Amino acid sequence: MYEHYAFALYSPVPYNLIMTNKGKLSTAPYKGVRDFYPEDMAVQRYMFDVWRMTAEHFGFEAYDASILEPSNLYRAKGAENAEIINEQTYTFTDRGNREVTLRPEMTPTVARMVAGKRRDLTFPVRWYSIPNLFRYERMQRGRLREHWQLNCDIFGVDDVSADIEILLLANEIFKNFGAENGEHYAIHVSSRRLLEALYDSVDLSEDARREATRLADRKNKMEPGDFKEKMTAICGDAAKDVLTYLNADNINVVPEGIKKHDAYTELQTLIATMEETGTPVVFDPTIIRGFDYYTDTVFEVVDLHPDNNRAMMGGGRYDNLTEMFGGEPIPGIGFGFGDVTLRDFLESHELMTTDITSPTLAVLPTDTEKNIAAQKLAQHFRNAGIATSVDVSNKKVGKKIANAGEQFIDYALVLGEDEIDSESYTVKDLIEGTELSGTLQDLIDQLTNNG
Amino acid sequence: MYEHYAFALYSPVPYNLIMTNKGKLSTAPYKGVRDFYPEDMAVQRYMFDVWRMTAEHFGFEAYDASILEPSNLYRAKGAENAEIINEQTYTFTDRGNREVTLRPEMTPTVARMVAGKRRDLTFPVRWYSIPNLFRYERMQRGRLREHWQLNCDIFGVDDVSADIEILLLANEIFKNFGAENGEHYAIHVSSRRLLEALYDSVDLSEDARREATRLADRKNKMEPGDFKEKMTAICGDAAKDVLTYLNADNINVVPEGIKKHDAYTELQTLIATMEETGTPVVFDPTIIRGFDYYTDTVFEVVDLHPDNNRAMMGGGRYDNLTEMFGGEPIPGIGFGFGDVTLRDFLESHELMTTDITSPTLAVLPTDTEKNIAAQKLAQHFRNAGIATSVDVSNKKVGKKIANAGEQFIDYALVLGEDEIDSESYTVKDLIEGTELSGTLQDLIDQLTNNG
Repeated sequence: MYEHYAFALYSPVPYNLIMTNKGKLSTAPYKGVRDFYPEDMAVQRYMFDVWRMTAEHFGFEAYDASILEPSNLYRAKGAENAEIINEQTYTFTDRGNREVTLRPEMTPTVARMVAGKRRDLTFPVRWYSIPNLFRYERMQRGRLREHWQLNCDIFGVDDVSADIEILLLANEIFKNFGAENGEHYAIHVSSRRLLEALYDSVDLSEDARREATRLADRKNKMEPGDFKEKMTAICGDAAKDVLTYLNADNINVVPEGIKKHDAYTELQTLIATMEETGTPVVFDPTIIRGFDYYTDTVFEVVDLHPDNNRAMMGGGRYDNLTEMFGGEPIPGIGFGFGDVTLRDFLESHELMTTDITSPTLAVLPTDTEKNIAAQKLAQHFRNAGIATSVDVSNKKVGKKIANAGEQFIDYALVLGEDEIDSESYTVKDLIEGTELSGTLQDLIDQLTNNG
Repeated sequence: MYEHYAFALYSPVPYNLIMTNKGKLSTAPYKGVRDFYPEDMAVQRYMFDVWRMTAEHFGFEAYDASILEPSNLYRAKGAENAEIINEQTYTFTDRGNREVTLRPEMTPTVARMVAGKRRDLTFPVRWYSIPNLFRYERMQRGRLREHWQLNCDIFGVDDVSADIEILLLANEIFKNFGAENGEHYAIHVSSRRLLEALYDSVDLSEDARREATRLADRKNKMEPGDFKEKMTAICGDAAKDVLTYLNADNINVVPEGIKKHDAYTELQTLIATMEETGTPVVFDPTIIRGFDYYTDTVFEVVDLHPDNNRAMMGGGRYDNLTEMFGGEPIPGIGFGFGDVTLRDFLESHELMTTDITSPTLAVLPTDTEKNIAAQKLAQHFRNAGIATSVDVSNKKVGKKIANAGEQFIDYALVLGEDEIDSESYTVKDLIEGTELSGTLQDLIDQLTNNG
């Protein structure tokens, strides 16, 4: 199907280029990106595994795509917009004169993929991915230029039951990390359609809507008096209803004028159903999440840690996104959740419990002349299903045992002349401090029973 | 530790840019890269899982790094070399005037990481990673510009026992994919150091060595007569021994002059030990693998399929690579194995058996008014540990059942008015054609016992 990919055999970078570089290079990674040494990778693996397990528990299927996307996936027509994209993303021109962008978001990609196979896919489509995403911006202290983000989306369902499912999934992810709804986090929901219904009910102009929405997005960072004053300046007579709505702390106290609207009924159903499933959500009319993308339900999961009381992730309904590829729009709802944000959350609440898997057995030859014998012996243990490493360094055996302990290895087998001659071995249990002895087969029997 | 990464909440690409783009965009991915729809992703997951499991079974620890690397990691001093790099990799200048490359190989990265923490690491280091790699070249039909590659390396061991371990690991990977050594693949080994010993024994000039090595690398693509003639032109009187060596089909028939060299003894030990562990390897003096990078053992795994008889993956010992970061060089040995090559191998030998995991239960409301009730019911099954999806589309229920069957779902529960009123449900076993009935709790009990 594919032409063979030559990387595996011949490097595109001739090896002598590397070897002839005698200047000492820095060992630092590129600015704004991270190296994952094994201890960091174990954390990453734990987080990704919980994400995957939870998404699959809801029947979501994994997909992926390249980090390279044609730039026009993100590009509007005007030169001004094009400039914004170039300043905020890694975008460059390839030698075929194609503009390429390192994807900053997964949603345009998943919309492209769904639109591309709309005739072959069985809707509803439930897909998840954990893409690597990139952004370019002037460096600020500690800001990263890349991260990984869980993306979960449902395509092809335009009723509120899909919104409920997405919220249940978001909640279950937190639950599976050991967090409690209401104690560690809260789910805040709103509706862009309901906000539009409110504006309709007070007959607000397009310009005033845009300004009012922008202000609402900043409400929680402002003094109440200041907010009220600015909103009144924007909305005039309509300010009373707009303020009543944006100050509402539950869905029953919104202005009467919008209670007949079906966006209201739907949001009510969503909130009531979530309550019934034991997953309470908070009506929060200040949730906005961008300006023109979301069409209906929007939500955020907020960290309840007193030092870190902010939105960690969020999403919403975007019913028109596939339009740009032609054809009838396919309704979508989904969310994104970044690895850095999750790690901060888990660490600040002391919920990080990585299950670092490590080899069960280490074979430790007493000197390097026993290394070959050690490799042969190790292979017998591996064949019996026991994860086994060999310390073939020239360290003293006591140091080898200490290292094995530091690496959380469960058992150590010291291999010297006597053991090789007698074919009888002793395995130390590094955690309990006990010992097992016997032939290879004896030990395999004992270790696989104890394992 | 990190500043919060804003991606999760606010897109660097303002959503209105996407929405105002009314021109119809292509749904094709960027040239030379792949979209992974769920059926492809299942294959990828299967391959990556076997890779990971096998590496961890040998005590290897996972690491990772960003695809973005400073270009000077790959850059030599001369302008000519710089040009080669620019033409074969994705390299661009960021707005901080840094040259950045999308990594074409993982080995320079892992050498950078090991050198960067040489004081903190406990050697021997056994690390693996499955990085995404990129190369730029003029498009040829079907050639890819990116792939994923398993990389396994051992650092800090300069004796042949590490070479043996790496070969055992390479073999075990193929074994765990259901392939048989000698039937589906063969492992070919050689030694760069032994080749140098041969050149020393016949006192070949540097220039002739370089030319002879290049020719040896192409031996299997040439007519024997043509090869002999060209080698004689290069080596003159020394050609006899060089040809004897390069034509040797086992290590015992190489010229006597090199049999005393310790590179010979080591390679003999390696071949004999592999034979003893039931993992035969083939001495193949034509294995070269690049020019200046490898210092000693080199190997390739060759596909034995008659239509595809070529090297699939390979590696070797590179004892000086960390030198470019300063300090004492840290010996290394490792290999890379690409996903596209592996997939071709598994498919051509009919060894591909992806274990596509799918939800156990699908809840199918008879119409969209039951969608909310269906979500609530599904959540009870999920809470009991049963992977559950809900078909909230407006399809007829017969069509929903058919779709569930196509998606390899095991059980379907049709939810109509009667079921909601009576709180008694029927679950169809879509594979066996049988049915289970009862309350929610009855069904959970039966499904978790049957699961």
